Amino acid sequence: MDLIKNLLKGDKISIAKIISQVENDTGIDILDKIFPYTGRAYQIGITGPPGAGKSTLVNAIAKGLLRDNYKIGIIAVDPTSPFSGGALLGDRIRMGDLALQKNVFIRSMATRGSLGGLSKKTKDVALVLDAAGMDYILIETVGVGQIELDIAQVCDTKVVVLVPESGDSIQAMKAGLLEIADIVVVNKADREGSDALLMELKFAFDLRLKTTWSVPILKTIATDESGVEDLIKEIKAHQNFLKSSGEYKKIQRMRILNQINELIEAEIKKHLHESVIDKERLDKFVKEIEKRKTSPYKIAKKIVKNLINYK
Amino acid sequence: MDLIKNLLKGDKISIAKIISQVENDTGIDILDKIFPYTGRAYQIGITGPPGAGKSTLVNAIAKGLLRDNYKIGIIAVDPTSPFSGGALLGDRIRMGDLALQKNVFIRSMATRGSLGGLSKKTKDVALVLDAAGMDYILIETVGVGQIELDIAQVCDTKVVVLVPESGDSIQAMKAGLLEIADIVVVNKADREGSDALLMELKFAFDLRLKTTWSVPILKTIATDESGVEDLIKEIKAHQNFLKSSGEYKKIQRMRILNQINELIEAEIKKHLHESVIDKERLDKFVKEIEKRKTSPYKIAKKIVKNLINYK
Repeated sequence: MDLIKNLLKGDKISIAKIISQVENDTGIDILDKIFPYTGRAYQIGITGPPGAGKSTLVNAIAKGLLRDNYKIGIIAVDPTSPFSGGALLGDRIRMGDLALQKNVFIRSMATRGSLGGLSKKTKDVALVLDAAGMDYILIETVGVGQIELDIAQVCDTKVVVLVPESGDSIQAMKAGLLEIADIVVVNKADREGSDALLMELKFAFDLRLKTTWSVPILKTIATDESGVEDLIKEIKAHQNFLKSSGEYKKIQRMRILNQINELIEAEIKKHLHESVIDKERLDKFVKEIEKRKTSPYKIAKKIVKNLINYK
Repeated sequence: MDLIKNLLKGDKISIAKIISQVENDTGIDILDKIFPYTGRAYQIGITGPPGAGKSTLVNAIAKGLLRDNYKIGIIAVDPTSPFSGGALLGDRIRMGDLALQKNVFIRSMATRGSLGGLSKKTKDVALVLDAAGMDYILIETVGVGQIELDIAQVCDTKVVVLVPESGDSIQAMKAGLLEIADIVVVNKADREGSDALLMELKFAFDLRLKTTWSVPILKTIATDESGVEDLIKEIKAHQNFLKSSGEYKKIQRMRILNQINELIEAEIKKHLHESVIDKERLDKFVKEIEKRKTSPYKIAKKIVKNLINYK
């Protein structure tokens, strides 16, 4: 298929077309076909509360990596991100430069509507960008809900971005953000309170059980790119750490297992909704449940018992 | 079983014990047993951004309903809620009064760790409170992620709480909050900007397609309970609207269908993880996928084909 051939060459229009197919749930065949060409791209998650300056940081990281001739994919899953069209002010114009570069592909994911499948779709889009020859894929998510954590967790290096505002670190801890962090960034470090936040974070991480990777806590001012070079260094250090320690291989294996499980569940759901459960029979069940003659628990067990082959 | 008998009488210790069982996933049998006694409680969802004063409002609504001798269950799924132990300041003490009242049962849901099953567990806890004879169940969630929307959606009346702070209404719209609102509350209405927010919201709702229920937009100051009486009136008006229009019956039916589907999926997952897929075979598959000899898509289809009875 020409489309896939062109995708593998990194053709932007083909990437966009294939992503659209994948997003519309008609792309399983394509994902299957491009799968042999994946497994190369390194995925970096950038997450944090709204207003932390994630997009500007992603922008700066991408520029830094571009200088070393890497190919960069950007996926924005943040409704407040200018990449995803969520910005209300003029940020989007600033991002325009980046989108026009040859070695950059930017894709924003809709965060309204079908939120349920968002984390799965993000993974699929990352797979397409992987096949298209991207060296690094930057995934920007807003760090508040479970879906964002899910997405962040499929990234190889997870960067958590905070800003010196009251309670930010506490909120981040509550949201489980710090637990997933491989690198923590205090952005807008020229603002008041950044040193205090830095201290607070260092203290929090000092209390944690020591692992073989010690989480670096960095200061950046993404708007003028200061600190970003160091951040890229730390990202690469983490990448090397994962690869040399064998962690990377383990993570990849776990990811495949999870994907198989997810696909099995999706496949079963499809069958459930399509044909397996007889609609009339289901209606009868619902009426009995409404009258409290039976319970959803009994009915579900009954249906599954008939559905599954035990061997 | 004595425990269930006591639950049905509204005994607080029995309620707490049964909720613990339900939360630990060992409670399916109990849910099945109490199911015949459910279907009476009316569920009110209170959601909104962090800091909107949701807990104080829940507190005030509960007090108002208590004056009319209703039995009230409160479920807090908000990490910033003093009900759920998330408050950093002294709010929790204020809530103490309420918890000691005979006709109130308060339960907070852990928002860390197993976030995945949170929305399901909230529904289960609501079912327990329903069986325990609660007239109203108030469910407080922070309105940011998908899980919160899921929980809000299982409520009969959904109250969205905003505060006069810059951008609050825009964030709420982005998060899909206003779309699910049956009633909108501008809390902390003594603050500057509350009239502007009110206007903005009225304008936003005027633009929407008219439905049979027109969403009221109210002002409250939860801390001194002003406006809360009107809010309770609107909640009851919405309750009457749902019941008289036949919507309530439809919602209940849809909820049963969704629950059956969720339970079927959970049941199938359990089987998948327990025994159906042979671990050695799966390992072999993963290794082939790692070498890109096959894809997760092909493997998932193959497994499901062997798993499901087609008839």
